[in-house]
Amino acid sequence: MSSRWGEQFCISIFGESHGASIGVVIDGLPSGIPLDLAEISQFMQRRAPGRNKTSTARQESDLPQIQSGFHNGVTTGTPLCAVIANSDTHSSDYAPFSAIARPGHADYTGAVRYGGHQDVRGGGHFSGRLTAPLCFAGAVAKQLLKQKGILVGAHIAQIAGVSDLAFDPVSLDADTLLCAGQRDFPVLDVQAGETMREKIEAARMAQDSVGGVVECAAIGLPAGIGSPMFGGLENRIASIVFGIPAVKGLEFGAGFAVAQRYGSENNDAFCLQNGQIRTATNHAGGILGGISNGMPVVFRAAFKPTPSISQEQHTVDFRAMQETSIAIHGRHDPCVVGRAVPVVEAAAAIAIADACIEIFGLQNW
Amino acid sequence: MSSRWGEQFCISIFGESHGASIGVVIDGLPSGIPLDLAEISQFMQRRAPGRNKTSTARQESDLPQIQSGFHNGVTTGTPLCAVIANSDTHSSDYAPFSAIARPGHADYTGAVRYGGHQDVRGGGHFSGRLTAPLCFAGAVAKQLLKQKGILVGAHIAQIAGVSDLAFDPVSLDADTLLCAGQRDFPVLDVQAGETMREKIEAARMAQDSVGGVVECAAIGLPAGIGSPMFGGLENRIASIVFGIPAVKGLEFGAGFAVAQRYGSENNDAFCLQNGQIRTATNHAGGILGGISNGMPVVFRAAFKPTPSISQEQHTVDFRAMQETSIAIHGRHDPCVVGRAVPVVEAAAAIAIADACIEIFGLQNW
Amino acid sequence: MSSRWGEQFCISIFGESHGASIGVVIDGLPSGIPLDLAEISQFMQRRAPGRNKTSTARQESDLPQIQSGFHNGVTTGTPLCAVIANSDTHSSDYAPFSAIARPGHADYTGAVRYGGHQDVRGGGHFSGRLTAPLCFAGAVAKQLLKQKGILVGAHIAQIAGVSDLAFDPVSLDADTLLCAGQRDFPVLDVQAGETMREKIEAARMAQDSVGGVVECAAIGLPAGIGSPMFGGLENRIASIVFGIPAVKGLEFGAGFAVAQRYGSENNDAFCLQNGQIRTATNHAGGILGGISNGMPVVFRAAFKPTPSISQEQHTVDFRAMQETSIAIHGRHDPCVVGRAVPVVEAAAAIAIADACIEIFGLQNW
Amino acid sequence: MSSRWGEQFCISIFGESHGASIGVVIDGLPSGIPLDLAEISQFMQRRAPGRNKTSTARQESDLPQIQSGFHNGVTTGTPLCAVIANSDTHSSDYAPFSAIARPGHADYTGAVRYGGHQDVRGGGHFSGRLTAPLCFAGAVAKQLLKQKGILVGAHIAQIAGVSDLAFDPVSLDADTLLCAGQRDFPVLDVQAGETMREKIEAARMAQDSVGGVVECAAIGLPAGIGSPMFGGLENRIASIVFGIPAVKGLEFGAGFAVAQRYGSENNDAFCLQNGQIRTATNHAGGILGGISNGMPVVFRAAFKPTPSISQEQHTVDFRAMQETSIAIHGRHDPCVVGRAVPVVEAAAAIAIADACIEIFGLQNW
Repeated sequence: MSSRWGEQFCISIFGESHGASIGVVIDGLPSGIPLDLAEISQFMQRRAPGRNKTSTARQESDLPQIQSGFHNGVTTGTPLCAVIANSDTHSSDYAPFSAIARPGHADYTGAVRYGGHQDVRGGGHFSGRLTAPLCFAGAVAKQLLKQKGILVGAHIAQIAGVSDLAFDPVSLDADTLLCAGQRDFPVLDVQAGETMREKIEAARMAQDSVGGVVECAAIGLPAGIGSPMFGGLENRIASIVFGIPAVKGLEFGAGFAVAQRYGSENNDAFCLQNGQIRTATNHAGGILGGISNGMPVVFRAAFKPTPSISQEQHTVDFRAMQETSIAIHGRHDPCVVGRAVPVVEAAAAIAIADACIEIFGLQNW
Repeated sequence: MSSRWGEQFCISIFGESHGASIGVVIDGLPSGIPLDLAEISQFMQRRAPGRNKTSTARQESDLPQIQSGFHNGVTTGTPLCAVIANSDTHSSDYAPFSAIARPGHADYTGAVRYGGHQDVRGGGHFSGRLTAPLCFAGAVAKQLLKQKGILVGAHIAQIAGVSDLAFDPVSLDADTLLCAGQRDFPVLDVQAGETMREKIEAARMAQDSVGGVVECAAIGLPAGIGSPMFGGLENRIASIVFGIPAVKGLEFGAGFAVAQRYGSENNDAFCLQNGQIRTATNHAGGILGGISNGMPVVFRAAFKPTPSISQEQHTVDFRAMQETSIAIHGRHDPCVVGRAVPVVEAAAAIAIADACIEIFGLQNW
Repeated sequence: MSSRWGEQFCISIFGESHGASIGVVIDGLPSGIPLDLAEISQFMQRRAPGRNKTSTARQESDLPQIQSGFHNGVTTGTPLCAVIANSDTHSSDYAPFSAIARPGHADYTGAVRYGGHQDVRGGGHFSGRLTAPLCFAGAVAKQLLKQKGILVGAHIAQIAGVSDLAFDPVSLDADTLLCAGQRDFPVLDVQAGETMREKIEAARMAQDSVGGVVECAAIGLPAGIGSPMFGGLENRIASIVFGIPAVKGLEFGAGFAVAQRYGSENNDAFCLQNGQIRTATNHAGGILGGISNGMPVVFRAAFKPTPSISQEQHTVDFRAMQETSIAIHGRHDPCVVGRAVPVVEAAAAIAIADACIEIFGLQNW
Repeated sequence: MSSRWGEQFCISIFGESHGASIGVVIDGLPSGIPLDLAEISQFMQRRAPGRNKTSTARQESDLPQIQSGFHNGVTTGTPLCAVIANSDTHSSDYAPFSAIARPGHADYTGAVRYGGHQDVRGGGHFSGRLTAPLCFAGAVAKQLLKQKGILVGAHIAQIAGVSDLAFDPVSLDADTLLCAGQRDFPVLDVQAGETMREKIEAARMAQDSVGGVVECAAIGLPAGIGSPMFGGLENRIASIVFGIPAVKGLEFGAGFAVAQRYGSENNDAFCLQNGQIRTATNHAGGILGGISNGMPVVFRAAFKPTPSISQEQHTVDFRAMQETSIAIHGRHDPCVVGRAVPVVEAAAAIAIADACIEIFGLQNW
């Protein structure tokens, strides 16, 4: 099994980059949730390529066609399926690579896993394009969560060593949470964003690519969501976020920095604020024992630089079993981090929705 | 649901720190796998507290009693249950804390999640003691994997800013992989280990605690294990590793460092070595597209400093809804990282066993 | 969750009768399995309405369009999605019934379950039309099983009190197993079939409907497939067969007749035949302890008479909360049993494929 | 996987007949549910052998020891584990049979499935004794359901051709539902029960055994519980009931009788009664489209006669691959149907609890 996720908010993603279509079935949705299709479309637009020169020139309509589970403006509660047709596909761009493993790609591992039967055109099921249906499902999850006053947002935290401002994990408000998502280049600090873009453009000119970090947060989540051990918010978020291509690291709250701290520094003191239990700091990222504590949930995911670069690289032809080299042409982002921002939001929203349905059930929305 | 994990190698963990017993049921095991009970016991001993002054003085026998699923020296293939009796429990150590939230602990979140009905004695189901049955299951998984020549090992990568040597992700051999596990203090560089111990002791003297990082690797895993999207090795490892208390970050291969790299630096060139496909570097941590590529699988998990410290801390009595303070006495590790090493190995072994059974089935062991 | 099934051969069905389309995603398929699309189409044709006057006059093309997971004539191993467009829909036929509960239908229960938000047109997600994607998935499962020499077939065992011949559970051969499926009216005894058709026609003339029984069998299944307790073949078959609308009973082997038997009559004596272990009788329906014993697996499912009848029936308007009456017009089968035959085969094939993948893994096909 | 069940109310059963212990872990329980241990014990006593001469003479204390998940008289919400020690085991009774397949037993199929490594003593994991932990979990589920006014009861519907009175599916009240459970021999009609006992005793004298049918019902279940397709009440009940050894058939409401009915007979007319929607008849067994309609849920399960009989039977030694014969001595029920009554109740309660938690969530109990 590979492309199913969820115990309550269950998604089943299908499709290959150059097949007939890609899409997702969502099973386990509460009924009667209004869906704003324009908002879904806008959200998905944030992931779509071709918006500016930092991303691939491939044009995708990426308009999801809802097949089921949505009627009279609300979810029906039965499975909701959305399909996105593949139209602008140039398989010839990829054709010669089918047996020469592109470094950093799943060409070789996919060939072993599927006995050479996988559809390799455009990366097939491994393509970043498969994040489009994930975004669709995430857009639905976001609208579900909004019913409970829960908001999810993200921004580029870093690209090529240039850092954006960070979310304030204690006092993060909705405006800050959502502002990056309203920008073409999703950062909090527009000036830092300009520097990032220059780094990306420089990488492109050098036939190279760069990586980065996305920071994501959820606010409005009440205390008590999640479970200890394997049903925790961290487990759920992690198991879906690592499904986003190129993610190689994930940290919650203070993350890896906790390793160098004393307990007295790292513990978040509880306090009362307007009669509400809060913590003075939020190194825990809003999660204790896998369960939300009412503070913002904050995490960061590290993305590797796009493996597709047009420089010549040493590799192997795994059919001929010979060493060779490859230069990858075609349409590729020199940096996927900007487009990954809504994908991370989507993954987080799905994970949190899953945990919320466990507690609230299907009837209490 | 909280304490179940796995699609093929399925575990169900139960127990509270001061209840009658803790334990685990493993369902989905292949039959006929020989289990070396002495080896399991030795492995669990590595996690047990009380081995030296860097860990809690609590004495636990921690001897798992196998109830089922094991007969004539081999797994029967039916559910294997092991129970560990709780004996040395001093509930009075914890009694006064039941409504005063210990900072960094799940006291408050657990109370909200379970409506105040959870067993709070000794941390209840949130206790680090619940990693004992996880280790038992991991020990079984390790012996299963050994049938296929797959070995899992780990070591302390860092404590309180002091670093151990790192695993060589390209040429890691069995001796290096397993050597730390044979030491009282599981490091590769004994000298660095001494410095770490001094840091831990200094923290203890200062009524404080320290965090750290565990590095874990698996060798001998053939290419082709895992799946794209949510069934990947990273997803599986992440969803179980974040079930270990105190883990706040996880990274595979080069991890967060990829964010600052160029694609040309980060891509691992494929090459042939003795007729085998390998990569010249291993920034991918042995995983491409969620699937093993035949190189060592390498990841690191960040552990926060033990939240239980005897310094006075500001907090809230969440029943009285009043601010107050707390000083935590009782038996607590000033650093859990050393004891966490086998726990991380266990989690990794279970995740990899799960992925292997998916490919090989139950019959091909 | 409602429309997902499977641990290994995982299906996720979506769609409503009068929505844009219906379909299925299959996740967990082995790769490289050749699929004969013409055979799939023929199989689905057996379920399609409009073939003769015993079934509804609704014309459906029912041609599934494969979206993914199939390339160069074989399964890729990644999720296989097939979509069937809804075209010939006359929503007005159903419009007036939306708040008047049709007796025997899910109008009322669906309205409570989904808070009145479900799509009621044509039965929505409760429609028998949703068995079309189930048949598609079953057709794929049948071709997978054929790789191992396992064949699944079914026939009408009874309609309106008229019985067909029964499968011989001991010596059932492929010709007998598959012959009914090649007939317009899927019976073993053509003469009995004629009488059944007369009963159906008489019911239609009387503005009524009739029920019946489908008998299904699998041959070629080796001993050792399935698991005790909840992973047994009976559990798996039952949990999917009761997903077919109108099924109200299910029995394996001698079924309910065992209740009146002595152990000495009902036990199947083991014997050797050409060096193979077999049983002299097969009252167990090929399953002992949930596990196949190498004999034909045989079961029967009881279908209630079509609840849609044009006679006036007493009922309730559950919005107005008033008693009222209803006469259901539109296109309805007076008997679904004939069309249910391939659906039962499909369900059985999926359940058996699921159990086989558990044992064989993904790599051994 | 074999012995796990449930999406919300998740059980994991372990143990072998002659191993150290048997037991169950329940994960996914709401917290704060009071458990009456005496009532649980009484319920389990109904399943225990040795109560009268119609059942095996084996004495079992069968007292479950709760290990976790229960504190201060209520569920904690964390996994609840109960263990039942095996004490009164006479392995020598079974020893000689290990390679001679007992007809009607899983000796041969288990040996193939587990490669001969399963624990065969006393039937191992296939033993009817494993229904004890199922009963424990069912007793917990029953007390959970009682919080919502839902009651589950059952009785012997038939043994050896002798029928008990049937539950009235329309007006079944709590007294009738529960009365059989309070009797040593769980029937509604005590006179019929006497005749059944005579049949059983006659079978015993003839070194034979008899089968029967259990009828089970749930009342108080509100409309709207369950889901279409595979998440229906029928699917859930079926997938667990077929996990009870010896069950070969299952029918809901009118069951197999629907096959011989007209739609006009079988449809249940909706009506209003005291402002509540009800049906005038209940051939549907309280379930339409997989979802409860507010009427009693009624089903029947057919049990085969105990396969262990002391008459000589023809069979095969599957190690020597030779035909042989066997006469089974030891302690065996000539009829398991009476003891199966609480087991069926337990299975039904677990299935219904699972469906209820899906709708209500964990917080609304």
